[in-house]
Amino acid sequence: MISKATLGRLPIYLKYLRSVNGSVTEISATTLSRGLNLGEVQVRKDLAAVCGSGRPKIGYKTKELIQSIENILSEKEPKEAVIIGAGKLGMALLDYTGFSEYGLRVIKAFDIDPTKCNEDVLPMNELHSYCLMHQIELGILAVKPESAQEAVNEMVKSGIRAIWSFSSQTPEVPQGVIVQYENLALSLAHLHNRMKNEAI
Amino acid sequence: MISKATLGRLPIYLKYLRSVNGSVTEISATTLSRGLNLGEVQVRKDLAAVCGSGRPKIGYKTKELIQSIENILSEKEPKEAVIIGAGKLGMALLDYTGFSEYGLRVIKAFDIDPTKCNEDVLPMNELHSYCLMHQIELGILAVKPESAQEAVNEMVKSGIRAIWSFSSQTPEVPQGVIVQYENLALSLAHLHNRMKNEAI
Repeated sequence: MISKATLGRLPIYLKYLRSVNGSVTEISATTLSRGLNLGEVQVRKDLAAVCGSGRPKIGYKTKELIQSIENILSEKEPKEAVIIGAGKLGMALLDYTGFSEYGLRVIKAFDIDPTKCNEDVLPMNELHSYCLMHQIELGILAVKPESAQEAVNEMVKSGIRAIWSFSSQTPEVPQGVIVQYENLALSLAHLHNRMKNEAI
Repeated sequence: MISKATLGRLPIYLKYLRSVNGSVTEISATTLSRGLNLGEVQVRKDLAAVCGSGRPKIGYKTKELIQSIENILSEKEPKEAVIIGAGKLGMALLDYTGFSEYGLRVIKAFDIDPTKCNEDVLPMNELHSYCLMHQIELGILAVKPESAQEAVNEMVKSGIRAIWSFSSQTPEVPQGVIVQYENLALSLAHLHNRMKNEAI
């Protein structure tokens, strides 16, 4: 599986490769690493994970490399995700524009509170039919802790197989459903810790 | 330096230790790992990073361990942070309650738009005096890409030494200032990638 760190660099490679495509039909990890000012070993590993080992001394066909990266980033067919919970965080995520770089589209939020519902926020009881209709497999959990398990149950029933959770709760899920926790507080705490250590 | 993973488990240890403190004056990594259902090797490493190696066969004095963890989590003296940019994401972070677990308090947001200002959101031109007055060293960057460099310049001038950035831009900072990037899209992309790999 492609590591998170490699995945994070793919949009950078893709942008560069597209800019040279046409003028350069073949490109090596060395050339790419120089062009982007990245470590060669790292670039070599990244490209190997994406597109195999390349031809010795020549490298990769630029077009093939672009296609491989596009496939991984679901460029041609963006993957859609929904948010459960239209509080401040949920709405901020719905508004966040960075997802498209990774072939992802956060298309709707769902909430049990009818006063929050509008064109972008649908009532929770429509989650099931919406997910089936749009074949949604990715869900974002942004509800209050006390509602987390119930929301997760609804998500699973609706066919969601991967949950990105901003909740501090660890809900139970059936086997085959992945929950990935996003602990924003821990990220800031880690930065604080780094700062304390730099000062010593 | 304590790793992010270890840091993430400290609130769990602290809660447990406080619950047994009084009845247990000394505690070993083995006991703690059983009580919390965590791997013993991991717990042993975590405690060593926090409080040294402990006494053979006995472990740690419960009170000392509690104090060490409290110190790292700044329990007694919460560290304050400010947000630059009172858009949806900035307001969601200002509202986010999870920071206190790590001894952090996000106290104010700042914005150049006077219509956004209120009790919790101060005008950007007050950042400098506010940060000096409250000795703020931690700042959260949640502005639009085109305003990132200017906002960072103001943060640095105001004495902020560590910046948690939600911006896709990589602003220039003087030596000694840390910038830690939070790429939310990459987290969701990583989950998507994990899901695709599970399906194979």
